[in-house]
Amino acid sequence: MNIISIIEKKKDKKKLSSDEITYAVNAYVMNIISDAQMAALLMAICINGMDIDETYYLTKAMLESGDVIDLSSIDGIKVDKHSTGGVGDKTTLVVAPIVASLGVSVAKLSGKGLGHTGGTIDKLESISGFRSNLKEEEFINQVKKIGIVDAEQTKELVPADKKIYSLRDVTGTTRSIPLIASSIMSKKLASGADKIVLDVKTGSGALITDFEDSVNLAKVMVTIGKMFKKQTVAFITDMNEPLGNTIGNGLEVKEAIETLKGNGNERFTDLCLTISSYMISLGKKILLSEAKEMAKKALESGLALEKFKEFVMYQGGDITNIEVSKNTYDVTSIYDGYVRDIDEVMLANECLVMGAGRLNKDDEINHGVGMVIKKHIGDYVRKNEVLVTVYYDDKKPSDENILKSFALSKNKDDGFPIIYTVIK
Amino acid sequence: MNIISIIEKKKDKKKLSSDEITYAVNAYVMNIISDAQMAALLMAICINGMDIDETYYLTKAMLESGDVIDLSSIDGIKVDKHSTGGVGDKTTLVVAPIVASLGVSVAKLSGKGLGHTGGTIDKLESISGFRSNLKEEEFINQVKKIGIVDAEQTKELVPADKKIYSLRDVTGTTRSIPLIASSIMSKKLASGADKIVLDVKTGSGALITDFEDSVNLAKVMVTIGKMFKKQTVAFITDMNEPLGNTIGNGLEVKEAIETLKGNGNERFTDLCLTISSYMISLGKKILLSEAKEMAKKALESGLALEKFKEFVMYQGGDITNIEVSKNTYDVTSIYDGYVRDIDEVMLANECLVMGAGRLNKDDEINHGVGMVIKKHIGDYVRKNEVLVTVYYDDKKPSDENILKSFALSKNKDDGFPIIYTVIK
Repeated sequence: MNIISIIEKKKDKKKLSSDEITYAVNAYVMNIISDAQMAALLMAICINGMDIDETYYLTKAMLESGDVIDLSSIDGIKVDKHSTGGVGDKTTLVVAPIVASLGVSVAKLSGKGLGHTGGTIDKLESISGFRSNLKEEEFINQVKKIGIVDAEQTKELVPADKKIYSLRDVTGTTRSIPLIASSIMSKKLASGADKIVLDVKTGSGALITDFEDSVNLAKVMVTIGKMFKKQTVAFITDMNEPLGNTIGNGLEVKEAIETLKGNGNERFTDLCLTISSYMISLGKKILLSEAKEMAKKALESGLALEKFKEFVMYQGGDITNIEVSKNTYDVTSIYDGYVRDIDEVMLANECLVMGAGRLNKDDEINHGVGMVIKKHIGDYVRKNEVLVTVYYDDKKPSDENILKSFALSKNKDDGFPIIYTVIK
Repeated sequence: MNIISIIEKKKDKKKLSSDEITYAVNAYVMNIISDAQMAALLMAICINGMDIDETYYLTKAMLESGDVIDLSSIDGIKVDKHSTGGVGDKTTLVVAPIVASLGVSVAKLSGKGLGHTGGTIDKLESISGFRSNLKEEEFINQVKKIGIVDAEQTKELVPADKKIYSLRDVTGTTRSIPLIASSIMSKKLASGADKIVLDVKTGSGALITDFEDSVNLAKVMVTIGKMFKKQTVAFITDMNEPLGNTIGNGLEVKEAIETLKGNGNERFTDLCLTISSYMISLGKKILLSEAKEMAKKALESGLALEKFKEFVMYQGGDITNIEVSKNTYDVTSIYDGYVRDIDEVMLANECLVMGAGRLNKDDEINHGVGMVIKKHIGDYVRKNEVLVTVYYDDKKPSDENILKSFALSKNKDDGFPIIYTVIK
């Protein structure tokens, strides 16, 4: 195998073989081919694409670069859930306990955040004492005992993805359907679940902003899942405004708890119940309508909240001690009008300025800072009414940017649905 | 400036600004951006292209990364000549003395070969004692004294091209019109000549095999030359069979001398006379027809040969001592027929096997080995007649491959013209 001829083949828009893709991935992991050669190949893939076979080979090569978690000792159908990432996306914190409280095991590996989207592990680590670095044995034992676990991905899982992802991050090769699909699916397949539910975000704050591209990404991932004989369902959901009422790690955990108490933002609660229903339906092999009723009851009865508390306790967390900054101030509107649009990326970047997230992989973050969004698309705002409450420590955000994030108009706009479609 | 946004812009097929291109080149030379980032950008350029403005900015940024040779102290119009590289291309060795013998100064910088195409410096270094590493002062003084010099490019000239070229070589990003054009033109512009004559090879043994692409490359280079106010003329010439009768460094020098004596291969002599005529016409501001007559006379009178001898002597070479291997054998045809095609790349690769060229930049080469091609396209060959005489030392080529390189047929084929067209 010669990496230059493989690169030139993809440059010339030709289809790569299973052997060629496997060689490129393995040789890169083993440092036989250089960062520059892999970057050239990744850019050729970004521009010229990959068909479903090539994407399958790439996913398989990455999956086989490391260990696969064996969940077979856990009874029942294990259902995993993954979001492509958005602003204020704390869905896992609500969905996982709902599902687990109904007897469907959730064995979840999550990541830390980079850039404007947060990571579930960061959110959980705002809970005092919470441990996310579990050994595989602990991970499996916890699922067996309480049906729910959420831990950080260990190094042995999909090392090819780790190395390729870091390279994509600095070479302008992140936005590519085959590269995103193979990265997500190799990790999901390595996590060992039987069925996979994907939340593909679309809109201005998503990695893939274009709706059609989002649908294509979802279709590719669902097909890849099937090729590996793992039933996969993908939602296309909205990321044109922050999800729910909060941005920031501790604030989002508190919002998740409120949602588990039945006091959540309506749009966000809708999303959580729908995703939960699909997971329950897949895990229990029951009708979706029946699953949805069960999910609602799990919220109303407090069952899901109890499961969340149990989960946090098992991973060493003290739910009465969630880090939230003590300093707050309000940003108020300078006009009257209906909220027509919210620039969630700009708000997320102001949270980044305060330390809520990472610009670089090894940055320390501040779990307490963030924002509570008081007005959503479609809401009427009067002059001097609060748009955002800022929770800060040493660094303050730009109020000008926060104000700029809210586009007002005279006419009421219905905004975007929370769920656009489901790909099965 | 942010290199990732520059890379993504080109990935998204958008036009880069002068500032963006200059930043990328300078930051790469200064190691501020990595090989991987430059490789991603180069691949995006390969696939999505660059318009003439971008190609101009790239050429300018590369040119300005190093020194420019100042030839202004030399009287008259200085004309440079460059070939994009082919098998058996010893044209410079004939053209430069013809032109110089007629009073047009040739101040030429040449390269060493890599892969299947040879470098003029390698050919000259088969002459015992020949020095190619001249200081700038020696270089200029020699032109002033005898009107001709050919030396190896020093490190200070176009460092950006040197670094980018090495990277392109290992990342499958060599074949790209804007990248080739900017690489060649930045070097030609840095060499300080007033006018430039380009020999753009096209066909199976050329870097650009497609005829239309070759014409486009020529057009881009001619336009870039004009944008820098340097009159540039480009020939599109054939590289579908070896140029002339020999492949291999010492053998090619001997062939050049035979050509200067008027005993050269007809097709190759034609090419040399035509390129010489254009250089003379540009350098002396005379009609092309008049220039062609002068060139012919320079060959016939022995004037050009005398200039070649003077040139070699000035650079320390002993023309009576040219390295040619003593061991020879013939490869003979196993059929009767007309030569329909010669695979010059396969022949060149067999010469590489014997050590005539480099697979890697730092390889040592054997100046004595090579091949004399006894039959050309259109020639009739009888069974057992000699096709190729091999000059070898320790390693022999594959006779099977040499035989395979010659495609015979029952009907005579006229083959390819040596010059297809001229772009001015």
